[in-house]
Amino acid sequence: MTELPRSIDAIDTPAAVVDVDRMHANLQRAAEYCRAHGLAWRPHAKTHKTPALAAAQVRAGAVGVTVATPREAEAMATAVDDLLLAYPPIGRPKLQRLMALPEHVRLTVGLDSAEALAGLAEAARAAGRRVGVLVEVDAGMGRVGVQSSDDALALVRAAAETDGVEYRGIMFYPGHVRMRVEAQDAGIRALSERVGRTLEALHAAGVAPGVVSGGSTPTFWRSHEIEGLTEVRPGTNIFNDRTTAEIGACAWDECAYSVLATVVSTSVPGQVVVDAGAKALSKEEIRADVTGYGALLDRPDVIVKSVSEEHGIIDLSGTDWRPRIGERVRIVPNHVCVSVNLHERLYGVRGEEVVDAWEIAGRGR
Amino acid sequence: MTELPRSIDAIDTPAAVVDVDRMHANLQRAAEYCRAHGLAWRPHAKTHKTPALAAAQVRAGAVGVTVATPREAEAMATAVDDLLLAYPPIGRPKLQRLMALPEHVRLTVGLDSAEALAGLAEAARAAGRRVGVLVEVDAGMGRVGVQSSDDALALVRAAAETDGVEYRGIMFYPGHVRMRVEAQDAGIRALSERVGRTLEALHAAGVAPGVVSGGSTPTFWRSHEIEGLTEVRPGTNIFNDRTTAEIGACAWDECAYSVLATVVSTSVPGQVVVDAGAKALSKEEIRADVTGYGALLDRPDVIVKSVSEEHGIIDLSGTDWRPRIGERVRIVPNHVCVSVNLHERLYGVRGEEVVDAWEIAGRGR
Repeated sequence: MTELPRSIDAIDTPAAVVDVDRMHANLQRAAEYCRAHGLAWRPHAKTHKTPALAAAQVRAGAVGVTVATPREAEAMATAVDDLLLAYPPIGRPKLQRLMALPEHVRLTVGLDSAEALAGLAEAARAAGRRVGVLVEVDAGMGRVGVQSSDDALALVRAAAETDGVEYRGIMFYPGHVRMRVEAQDAGIRALSERVGRTLEALHAAGVAPGVVSGGSTPTFWRSHEIEGLTEVRPGTNIFNDRTTAEIGACAWDECAYSVLATVVSTSVPGQVVVDAGAKALSKEEIRADVTGYGALLDRPDVIVKSVSEEHGIIDLSGTDWRPRIGERVRIVPNHVCVSVNLHERLYGVRGEEVVDAWEIAGRGR
Repeated sequence: MTELPRSIDAIDTPAAVVDVDRMHANLQRAAEYCRAHGLAWRPHAKTHKTPALAAAQVRAGAVGVTVATPREAEAMATAVDDLLLAYPPIGRPKLQRLMALPEHVRLTVGLDSAEALAGLAEAARAAGRRVGVLVEVDAGMGRVGVQSSDDALALVRAAAETDGVEYRGIMFYPGHVRMRVEAQDAGIRALSERVGRTLEALHAAGVAPGVVSGGSTPTFWRSHEIEGLTEVRPGTNIFNDRTTAEIGACAWDECAYSVLATVVSTSVPGQVVVDAGAKALSKEEIRADVTGYGALLDRPDVIVKSVSEEHGIIDLSGTDWRPRIGERVRIVPNHVCVSVNLHERLYGVRGEEVVDAWEIAGRGR
């Protein structure tokens, strides 16, 4: 890490900036919710990919963290000793890297196929390592996960009977329930019923799961309504983002992450161009009725209406504010996880002061 | 760079892979077109961000390369000695980095404001460095660039009269002409007229530009229809991508870049999941009527219908092909420039053999 800039004004743009007080408040709020409802909190490190922030999550009460890739696992293992890889590791290189994690790391892996189970068990036996397994169940998203209670039972039995791995439970990801929080009733109910049927089948067969891991940022505050849930894995809500605020799962002033950018052109009337585009914010859309790729932290009604690779175009049609060339703005992106992934470091700020900086060590392969 | 894998099968996924024969053929084709039409070829290095590939472009006939950021300039300066920064450098850190480029680098900067010009000239004087200027003209895209011939003339005069910089010409970017090649007639005509009016005004005022720099990949093969153009700056067409093929600016078998991915789940009927998602392909859309985020290199009718961060969902509804867990695919992304930016290195392959690997040194800040 190069020397810390003293003030936010001394950071060159575009740059990824974290309001540390908001971030810690977000962690406290999540931890308290989980404590109040008896849920284990295992935040997903994909959002920050930063070991020091995973350590902050554990200090705030997390039981460990979730990761999606071997690189994230390796980086987080430097700071946290309980990891869930919520992604099936397919192929020898990934399995070898997992088995090479420090011995003190308690490793659990989520998977949804006999092939993934067999590969993991073989690698675990060869390494003489104890590895836990969660069987991933499709709770309605239609992305991954076994499709029926029968399939869940079959894979759970296989996990329970396979040498080298330890059956620890089931997991699911409710990525399809991402509408506004107050409109989630039917989604949460369907989710609860679907998970409930699987739990019944597993109980009846004598292979009840110790861990039932689910949750996400959009559904986070309703996790306690999902019957049988023991663990939640929200990623985004350490920082929050424009999507999270838009669906009502956070307040705007709970957005802790922004991209610092500089106005570089004011030539075209009704807009200004900043030096943060698709390679700093990303070009992910929210929905057809929520346009743009980000909004200003201090002026949430002012949006980045379009992006090219290194250009963000800020729409001034609804504001009297007229920034000049060289002026700086802070932009809350639509999706924080993919924005963080575009940066090499995070600057921690308190007001105008830069109080910390972290290499985003879990990026890449 | 770690040791080179011998075969493409030995590369862990997801990974960025370049068919070196297709890439060199793409470069030859672009070079021949430019030679045939008397156009200087200054490809944009933002696409590959890789010094060795910039050097390959110069060997194939490029006069130099275009860059968008100080980091790209620093990386390309290790391989190429004529750089156009097609982006206004605002603020001291960026200007200092530019002035610190090796002395043998001939530097030209595109800009569209008196503020950017003044900052650049001051930095150039302080550094005792000769820096060229191109005045950026908005040719209809509405992103950056002076808006009228009068404004162009005013900024050109300022550039010509300012100590420390050398007025070299004008530039524009026709990013709005990105429809199918055969539907570009009206766009090319409007472009030509708009640039023509500016050229007339500058000629009449005795400040005719030496360089008229334009061009892009979508309009590349029609560059000769733009009256007065002297230089083109296509980025994408070293590799091409799904968008370029879709608009007819390349054939599918001219796509030289793909993301190598592994099938990790086949649980949900009608689809399989691969380990390349928004953090390997990006989640940029093409248009409402061209869905998905990529297509298979060897099966262009099979598309990645959706992506999450580490998941790509391949739609099998229109094919009998049923890949198994562990099988590998190569995906041509919608937009190659933002996909390359998500990887740390490019693997050069010829058939199944890995013949080279390059660190993408121009990434980041």
